[in-house]
Formats: sequence, C-alpha cells, structure tokens
Amino acid sequence: MQATPTIVIVGSGRIAWHLGKRLKSKGLPIAQIIGRTASNIRPLAEALSTNWSNDYTELRPDADWILVAVRDDAIEMVAKQIAPYVGESLVTHTSGATPGKMLEPYFQRFGVFYPLQSFSMERSPVWSKIPFCVDASNDTDLLFLKKTAKTIGNLVYRVNDEQRALLHVAAVFANNFANHCFAIAEKLLDEKDLPFELMHPLMEETLAKALQDSPERMQTGPAVRGDVDTIQRHLNLLEQYPEWRDLYDGLTKSINSNLKY
Amino acid sequence: MQATPTIVIVGSGRIAWHLGKRLKSKGLPIAQIIGRTASNIRPLAEALSTNWSNDYTELRPDADWILVAVRDDAIEMVAKQIAPYVGESLVTHTSGATPGKMLEPYFQRFGVFYPLQSFSMERSPVWSKIPFCVDASNDTDLLFLKKTAKTIGNLVYRVNDEQRALLHVAAVFANNFANHCFAIAEKLLDEKDLPFELMHPLMEETLAKALQDSPERMQTGPAVRGDVDTIQRHLNLLEQYPEWRDLYDGLTKSINSNLKY
Repeated sequence: MQATPTIVIVGSGRIAWHLGKRLKSKGLPIAQIIGRTASNIRPLAEALSTNWSNDYTELRPDADWILVAVRDDAIEMVAKQIAPYVGESLVTHTSGATPGKMLEPYFQRFGVFYPLQSFSMERSPVWSKIPFCVDASNDTDLLFLKKTAKTIGNLVYRVNDEQRALLHVAAVFANNFANHCFAIAEKLLDEKDLPFELMHPLMEETLAKALQDSPERMQTGPAVRGDVDTIQRHLNLLEQYPEWRDLYDGLTKSINSNLKY
Repeated sequence: MQATPTIVIVGSGRIAWHLGKRLKSKGLPIAQIIGRTASNIRPLAEALSTNWSNDYTELRPDADWILVAVRDDAIEMVAKQIAPYVGESLVTHTSGATPGKMLEPYFQRFGVFYPLQSFSMERSPVWSKIPFCVDASNDTDLLFLKKTAKTIGNLVYRVNDEQRALLHVAAVFANNFANHCFAIAEKLLDEKDLPFELMHPLMEETLAKALQDSPERMQTGPAVRGDVDTIQRHLNLLEQYPEWRDLYDGLTKSINSNLKY
C-alpha cells in the first residue's frame, strides 16, 4: 500500500462524517464519497472538498481502502451492490454488531474498523479516548488498519468477530441501558415537578466510582444491602408505573444474584 | 432567629463531620456535638473546637437548630431520646429515605436538611455541586434552612416528603441500576478476555450526554432504532445468561415504549 492511501467512504451518516473529517485532518484525505442518495452524500463531500457519486459503477477502481460506514442492516446489501466494482481493494465496515466474515463472500480483502463510541453530530469526538477495534483477513491489512487507527486515535485493539459480538452487547448495557436508567430517573423526578439536575452530582459520582474500581465491587443501595423494607416501599411507589416496577424488580434481583455465571 | 444561630449536631458519622466542618468554615460554628459514644463524638468536637456531651440531658436548651445526622434506622430512636430536652428548637434530620413527618410527634418545629450526595471520609465534597433538599414545618424555618444551605452550598431545593420518596427511587435507577448495567458489561467483556477499560470512554460519553440534555432524547442504540435483527442477535448471544437476557429484553421493550406514562 502506498504512503498516502486512496480512501473511499461509502455512506454519509454520523460515522462517515466524523471519520471522514478526522482522517482528512490527519493527512489522510478521502478520495471519494459514494452512496445512494445524492442529497445526503453531497454535503459530506463538500465538507471534505472531495468527489462524490451516487452511482456504484463509479466507485474508484484504484481505491486502497473502502470504508463502508452505513447502518448495520444495510451493510450486506451495500457489500453486494459494490462487489462487482471492487477490484482488490480492502473493504471494511465500521460496525460493532456485524461480523467481519459477512464481507467474505464479496471481497478478497476485508476487515473491520470499529470505533467504540456513540457518535452524535452535535458533539466533537475525543479521539484520544476512543478505542478502535480492528480486524482484517490478512496481516498486512491488519497492520494498515492498526496504523491508521493509531494515526487518528490512540487506543487500538485487535478484536475478533466473536469478541466483538459480545463487546457490542456489553456496550448496549453500559451505554443504552445505563442511559435508560438515567431517563427513568428523569421521568420520575418530572412526575413530582423536580428538576433532573438534582440527579447530576449523583450520576457523576456513580461514573467516577465505576471508572475507579470494578462497578460490581462499588455497588451500593438497597438491593446489594438486601434492604427489603426500602425495596418494598420503592415497589409500592412504582405501582402506577408497571413497566418500571418490573425493571426495578428484575434489576434488584439481578444485583442480589451477585452476577454469578 | 438571631444572626448567628446556636447549632447542635447529634451524631458523628460522615455527614456530621462534613457538615460540621463546612458550617464552621462558613461562619456558622457548631455550639455542641452530642451523641451516645464519647469516643466517637470527641474527635469531631475537637476538630471543630467545640463542646461535646454523651448525655442527652445536657443538650443545649438554647439551641436554635438541632441537626440529627445519624443513620436512617436510628433517626426515630434518637428523636424519642432527645425530645424531652428539646424546647422550641428547630430539629431536622439529613436523610433522603425518611419522611420529615417522622419527627412531628416529637418536636414543635421540624424539617429536613438533606444533601443529595454519597459522602465518604476519603473524598472532599464539592459543595457547589451538591443539591440540598430542604423542608420545614413552618415558613420561617424553611427560609432559615434555605439560607443556610445557600451559605454552605449552591443548589437548594424545597422537596416535600412525597417528592423525596420518589427522588430516592429515582436515585436507585440513576445510581445503583446504571452501575449494575456497567457491572454486567464488565462481566460480559471478561467472558471474552477483553479489558473493561474498553468500555470507559463509552461510559464517560454516556454520562456527558445525559448531563448535557435529556437522557431520553440522547438515547441511541438498537432498541430506540427498532433494529430487530441486532436485538435478536444480542438475545441469542445472551442465551447462556438467562437473567441478563431477561434484563436485555425488558430494558429494550421499555426503551421502545418510549417512556409513555
């Protein structure tokens, strides 16, 4: 692979935007943005001062690296559609949920370039703190992906398909489900006309402790104390919110069972 | 109430120490530390250069404010024991879980002075970020507690018994249950020999987002996207951990139901 690789991004979502901008700012310009909907890909191509096409037949035949940054459930379809126009390029997706092997039937060289972070358009990623989980079908490509990840970030891990599958489940717990617990707290306070800001310092302390030591060891509260009176009082208070009551019950029992598997 | 109130603290635990030192440093010296065990209360009285007694009959009869800073399950007993020696003093406890009304049978003037944070002896409280939840049986006392909280902190809220009960449930979700989601993530990674540090940046981002905007609005992931394929794959991966599978299922459905109540 030459010194400055020819990079093509397929897609124009949050990851395409963030990775495209970051790669460019680190001296790895994007040669082409390609996708199905011109109105979506054009703004990204303009932001990156590069070419775009909404026709896969125009995919750069000399691409060194094709980064498929599309929704999980579109990856296979896109792979199938671009396959006829990909020569010997390395093709990777950016998904935590999708096996790299899904690309095997379509490409000679394939891999995964998965930044483990939840991106949003409004927030600038802190690249030095994003773990890049990479994998590739051959060692040269793996080395290239590791080096590229190190160029735009700091933390790089080789993670195989099986590991990444469970990593993604873990991320759903640590991110989406923890956030849902925050959301329920917010709603409960709202029910009593209390501002969510009341919870902020406690949430910060929860995180600080979980980062400092094992969250299992740092657990506090009525469930881990086995404080059945408080638990029962809480379940009664949640009587009118049966779904949250069930979650309270399930989470309390799970804390009590002490994570034994 | 005069300009510099006569303050008595009952108890010598973490909250007694932190509040006593903070009040003194803000020009509100403690007139007396009282409790049952001399060896516990003497060090605090010495640290605050004040008097102490382990005999409730010596409770200062001229106290303006008696701050009962003892464990939840000791509050009522202490109230009963000091009641005969309390004249017209304002008596408050510092508990989130205990109704202020519990003090009503014992005192003419009562209230709650609840700093919503988990204190530890090793960590200095960030007073400007601790919400003080106060309540009192009359408006003059409420104003005094609000002013005092504002003097030693920054965030002051009037929170009645009913609100504080639900606030406590909310704190279990935002603290214990969010932490349990972190703990499950840790266990899942451990199953595949992946370090928990991989999750740290995602956890930090989850918190940063939840503090910046409504966690409900900031939700991402397969559940809120309705990505049934990913959800099904995750449920299959959790087949051997039935309890976490059930939690995954319940939390996903709860996110999907969009917190409508």
